[in-house]
Amino acid sequence: MREALRQAELALAAGEVPVGAVVVRGDEILARAYNRREQLADPTAHAEILALREAGRKLGGWRLLETAVYVTVEPCAMCAGALIQARVGLLVFGARDPKGGAAGSLVNLVQFPGFNHRLPVIEGVMAAECARLMRDFFAVRRRRQQRGEVAELAEGARLEIE
Amino acid sequence: MREALRQAELALAAGEVPVGAVVVRGDEILARAYNRREQLADPTAHAEILALREAGRKLGGWRLLETAVYVTVEPCAMCAGALIQARVGLLVFGARDPKGGAAGSLVNLVQFPGFNHRLPVIEGVMAAECARLMRDFFAVRRRRQQRGEVAELAEGARLEIE
Repeated sequence: MREALRQAELALAAGEVPVGAVVVRGDEILARAYNRREQLADPTAHAEILALREAGRKLGGWRLLETAVYVTVEPCAMCAGALIQARVGLLVFGARDPKGGAAGSLVNLVQFPGFNHRLPVIEGVMAAECARLMRDFFAVRRRRQQRGEVAELAEGARLEIE
Repeated sequence: MREALRQAELALAAGEVPVGAVVVRGDEILARAYNRREQLADPTAHAEILALREAGRKLGGWRLLETAVYVTVEPCAMCAGALIQARVGLLVFGARDPKGGAAGSLVNLVQFPGFNHRLPVIEGVMAAECARLMRDFFAVRRRRQQRGEVAELAEGARLEIE
């Protein structure tokens, strides 16, 4: 999770919503990524998606069996669905996302009985640090909006921890 | 949908689960793609994800407002989540996926009250043709498995319309 947090800090430095993710198998880090939605002009470029894609390339196949994904913030529906698609073995996340979280907050897709894959979840790991990055990001953005430096509302925000 | 079906046929020819998708705005096709999970060794390389990524690149931003996505088969949870993330305006799909569909079959994520975006859905467009491609694909795969040409079970299948 420390490495995922480092990735989230890279996102923050790049002006992106600060979420970082790491894919691990055994002792090996297969992939690490941070949210790059603005940079890549890609609606799917959340940290988890980018990390899963890299891990697939590294393993030479899309089935990421026996891997664990560490992510600083609870995955959204897209990312939770991607964990299922990739057959990931374990999800570990830091802070909850009460507004969009799909691993327990709004819905729990990674343990949804109907799907063909389910995975255990460990939450709350370094949650305070993970949430603090998000709060800092949105506090800065709000101040810039109030000063008129950013015309757009925070509509694009993945979540907003108050 | 005719163009999405053409994409699904390309997937079939490439040995992939035959699903095709198209992103449209007004009269313009912004992006078209087919499922390339095996080819790209990418668990996220469903037709919808690839098409949304291309549309983002084309428009220069991740908000695909006022777009419609046409896909031959009901989206899974990952793809339904991606439609929400991209703020897509309309989903049109062909065949239902009773085993993994997340736009009404197992769950309806694109109209889930808690999320910050919802979109209307039109289903059943050219459903018979869309389903037939899937049936053909899985029939061939089953025959090859029975002959021992394919060791692996159909576990990786996105869905199986019986």
